[in-house]
Amino acid sequence: MPLLRLPGLIDPHVHLREPGLTHKEDLFSGTCAALAGGFTTILDMPNSRPPTSTPERLEEKARLAAAKAVCDVGFFVGATNDTPPEVAATAGPQACGLKIYVSETFGSLRIAELGTLAGYFAAWRGPGPIAVHAEDMMLATCLALAELYDQRLHVVHVSLASEIALIRRAKARGVRVTCEVTPHHLYLTEADAARLGAFGQMRPALATEADRQALWDHLDSIDCIATDHAPHTAAEKEGENPPPGVPGLETSLPLMLLVVAGGRLTLDDLVAKMHTNPRRIYGLPEQPDTYIEVDADARYDFPAQGWLTRPGWSPFAGMPARGRVLRVVLRGREVFRDGRVLAGPGAGRVVAPTP
Amino acid sequence: MPLLRLPGLIDPHVHLREPGLTHKEDLFSGTCAALAGGFTTILDMPNSRPPTSTPERLEEKARLAAAKAVCDVGFFVGATNDTPPEVAATAGPQACGLKIYVSETFGSLRIAELGTLAGYFAAWRGPGPIAVHAEDMMLATCLALAELYDQRLHVVHVSLASEIALIRRAKARGVRVTCEVTPHHLYLTEADAARLGAFGQMRPALATEADRQALWDHLDSIDCIATDHAPHTAAEKEGENPPPGVPGLETSLPLMLLVVAGGRLTLDDLVAKMHTNPRRIYGLPEQPDTYIEVDADARYDFPAQGWLTRPGWSPFAGMPARGRVLRVVLRGREVFRDGRVLAGPGAGRVVAPTP
Repeated sequence: MPLLRLPGLIDPHVHLREPGLTHKEDLFSGTCAALAGGFTTILDMPNSRPPTSTPERLEEKARLAAAKAVCDVGFFVGATNDTPPEVAATAGPQACGLKIYVSETFGSLRIAELGTLAGYFAAWRGPGPIAVHAEDMMLATCLALAELYDQRLHVVHVSLASEIALIRRAKARGVRVTCEVTPHHLYLTEADAARLGAFGQMRPALATEADRQALWDHLDSIDCIATDHAPHTAAEKEGENPPPGVPGLETSLPLMLLVVAGGRLTLDDLVAKMHTNPRRIYGLPEQPDTYIEVDADARYDFPAQGWLTRPGWSPFAGMPARGRVLRVVLRGREVFRDGRVLAGPGAGRVVAPTP
Repeated sequence: MPLLRLPGLIDPHVHLREPGLTHKEDLFSGTCAALAGGFTTILDMPNSRPPTSTPERLEEKARLAAAKAVCDVGFFVGATNDTPPEVAATAGPQACGLKIYVSETFGSLRIAELGTLAGYFAAWRGPGPIAVHAEDMMLATCLALAELYDQRLHVVHVSLASEIALIRRAKARGVRVTCEVTPHHLYLTEADAARLGAFGQMRPALATEADRQALWDHLDSIDCIATDHAPHTAAEKEGENPPPGVPGLETSLPLMLLVVAGGRLTLDDLVAKMHTNPRRIYGLPEQPDTYIEVDADARYDFPAQGWLTRPGWSPFAGMPARGRVLRVVLRGREVFRDGRVLAGPGAGRVVAPTP
């Protein structure tokens, strides 16, 4: 199958860094990298500066996206310690979901007290889910609150054997929980982190080989592949206090096509985890006449440079890749071809969940 | 009502410190303090040295109690990071319950990883409940695991408004959860901790006035009064790294009778929270011909000394008290009268839950 046509992929976990941190990435450079990676919709996280914690901040991001984005973008509203949960809830119809950082992350959005966390679970009215960065113990915390407050829970970047085991049990018992995994947690471990130094540091941290194996063993319980594209400049990574996070938009599909080539996922599974499931979980609208064309047989090693993401580096440089995005068509218009973005700033739309 | 006859009280949360820390308390001194406080059954926590983490350790405690205790004693088996959960589970029939420290405490028994914690929830077969020291966020963690693994959960020493709110919600939704509160969290706050210094340090720490008020406002959702009697010598408290914990066996009933006198609890409520509910929760056997006689009208201030607990101090010294235990009858034998223990070592029995 040299030429493969797939639906436009959806990445439900991206940090576009605008406003406030556009030296790392902005709504144009980030959405260009998305198209290069085969994504026609990406969902942007709220830990920009200032954080996206109110309807006004969401509107600001929507205005910026309308002027700059080249693919469709949805925006999370974020829980903070200093905005009342009810304010975030009023942003529900404009947001793809509520994002809560319950574990340590880049930025200052961590919710560390039960009273505040429960306040968000009590106040949120959807229609999107509550998406939580909740590692290990904190995953169970969020499962309890989701059950007690009748919320749909999406667990971002699962990385530990303990987490996937608990999610499997919860799903088996009918809890409304979904989850995602990143390619870097599927491919890399703490050994790679040692090799990569700051360029292998992210949250959640790369884990043990046993954790990585548990993710592979239970891929059927993982609803989405998400990049957690978290760009920082090489200079920042080489500095004294390197921030956690790695780019991922342009390496995700080739890494997952390698899994398909190896027989551990079918192409249908890939489409489910990179298109159908994220669309269902976040209630995203259809994109008519939208598809990507991929040379699925291309075999190469990821390069060290030449990326469209602003930082221009990848933790996967030198590792094997499979498949290359040749063309992206968004609503009937060719927006990407042979490594070049053809769409102008503003070709993308802001998407919100269908109630 | 000058002379009040009550059933023998049950304290479901006591640290007797034997084996290993008998300079703080032992099975004789601690059970003497229990009788002086009106308790004919106490449940002992596993953070002695070595910890009570296996059937063999439980048998050792039972042998010691048979030789030394003057009231009935039940023993918790404790979760640790280095004993397989299945081993603790085999101790189920001999233990009053499984105690898991999920938050920081005195000793080294804290379970900090989800995999280990879930292992205990998966392995435990009762018949007693899983009792958890789980503050704030960790309370929600334990609620999720109790639900996912069909365990009955007892939450020890609730101290925060966030905790009682979550327990109320869980109870209203049919979760099998019960809880206890200590007199010190009902009476004292962080202001008292500042006044008392090391003598006001315990885990959970004394909290805010708002937290204290929340406990009072929802006394009807609190199943048991438990002392968390945690004796340390005055010298240890005055030393460089004072250990957390305060004695409580001899002050609990007078403090709760003060609540009855003030009209915020009925005597029936007191008997429910200090006898009927702990007996039901831990499945404890009836003690025939067992009762205590109390001068319920006695008004005095707690003394600074004269306590039967080995450390000989109380954080309540100088505070108002109501009622005095005159006599304790255990299985037809007078075991305490007018401030003196009449029973000899070994008069108490080891109790375990009825399956």
